[in-house]
Amino acid sequence: MREEFRADLYEVGRLLVSMAEAVRTAMGAATTALLSADKEGAERVVARDAEINAIFHSVEDKVLRLLAQQAPVASDLRMVITSLHIGTDLERMGDLAEHVAKSALRRYPGVAVPAELAGVVGQMANVADRIAGKITLVLASRDLERAAELERDDDDMDELERQLYTRILGPDWKHGVEAAVDAALLGRFYERYADHAVNAGRHVIYLVTGESEK
Amino acid sequence: MREEFRADLYEVGRLLVSMAEAVRTAMGAATTALLSADKEGAERVVARDAEINAIFHSVEDKVLRLLAQQAPVASDLRMVITSLHIGTDLERMGDLAEHVAKSALRRYPGVAVPAELAGVVGQMANVADRIAGKITLVLASRDLERAAELERDDDDMDELERQLYTRILGPDWKHGVEAAVDAALLGRFYERYADHAVNAGRHVIYLVTGESEK
Repeated sequence: MREEFRADLYEVGRLLVSMAEAVRTAMGAATTALLSADKEGAERVVARDAEINAIFHSVEDKVLRLLAQQAPVASDLRMVITSLHIGTDLERMGDLAEHVAKSALRRYPGVAVPAELAGVVGQMANVADRIAGKITLVLASRDLERAAELERDDDDMDELERQLYTRILGPDWKHGVEAAVDAALLGRFYERYADHAVNAGRHVIYLVTGESEK
Repeated sequence: MREEFRADLYEVGRLLVSMAEAVRTAMGAATTALLSADKEGAERVVARDAEINAIFHSVEDKVLRLLAQQAPVASDLRMVITSLHIGTDLERMGDLAEHVAKSALRRYPGVAVPAELAGVVGQMANVADRIAGKITLVLASRDLERAAELERDDDDMDELERQLYTRILGPDWKHGVEAAVDAALLGRFYERYADHAVNAGRHVIYLVTGESEK
């Protein structure tokens, strides 16, 4: 029983790592499509979100089966339920990558991001990528130091979002209301993506230490 | 055992109904504060989000205890796990009400919403209130007809969000970039609030019928 439980939980963990890899790839591809007005690239991201959702459904199925067949208690039970929470955060990260791709599609053949914002949006995407890479490692290895770093990465993201706002609300903004609204929403998508990764990291910390970081 | 399970599950359901009532009150109060630039009102909404989160933690605790002590299977297990998903959606609705309140605070003593948008924002708030009232009833009574209505209410919300965009991106917009960005983000908060309620409604439908509406 015990060994079966470990094997099942390992499988759930493996699925979560695949989800993390997939949402990282999705956001990377969405950003590339966004900054280069690549219609096909953006459409691929939108289409592939269903794959991420499918992995999440496998996580849910496995968790339900695990609970029904093995009736875990105490820390085992906590681990299983926490996996579900992590899956929810990762699924949402996939949705946010899809939102970025859809922003690209909405302005095609134009570029949704004016050239002067490409730098800061690119930096937000870099932080998002770093964060997604880290949560993948944290899930694979339960590396608490890396998990704790996510909070700092999130501060970087918040700082970049502030820079973005300074640009679009500043006196030199020449791209009008629509581009500003697009940029503000895009900023929010990257920032929410990071938040969900930090949340997932907190769940891992809670799993390992039993202490909530919230 | 069986009776104990029913009693525990009833208690979880009762907590979810309280959460739904609380997030409805929160969004109502946040909207009032937003449209009237009421600083204290907005601060109260922000402060009370902790209470909503606390109810969610009670839901999580109860669910964990229920799983550990009673090891439910099949449809009982599904009900327990679905309660957790519904709690997650409601918790997020509370966060979104808090975001609306924070938008009000950010522009205080100004009014974050220009007078010409007060109508459409007020209508979005009305739909949000209708939706939150409905999800409260659906959780209390498992009324599937009401749950199904949520999809239509959500269409109303999407239509209002389009109207909001038409205004802020139209040729008559005279309030500049900042007010447009504020309004776009506010529109998104109401729209996401409705989405989460619809999601919670789908979970109830799935619970009762075993069929996913997604």
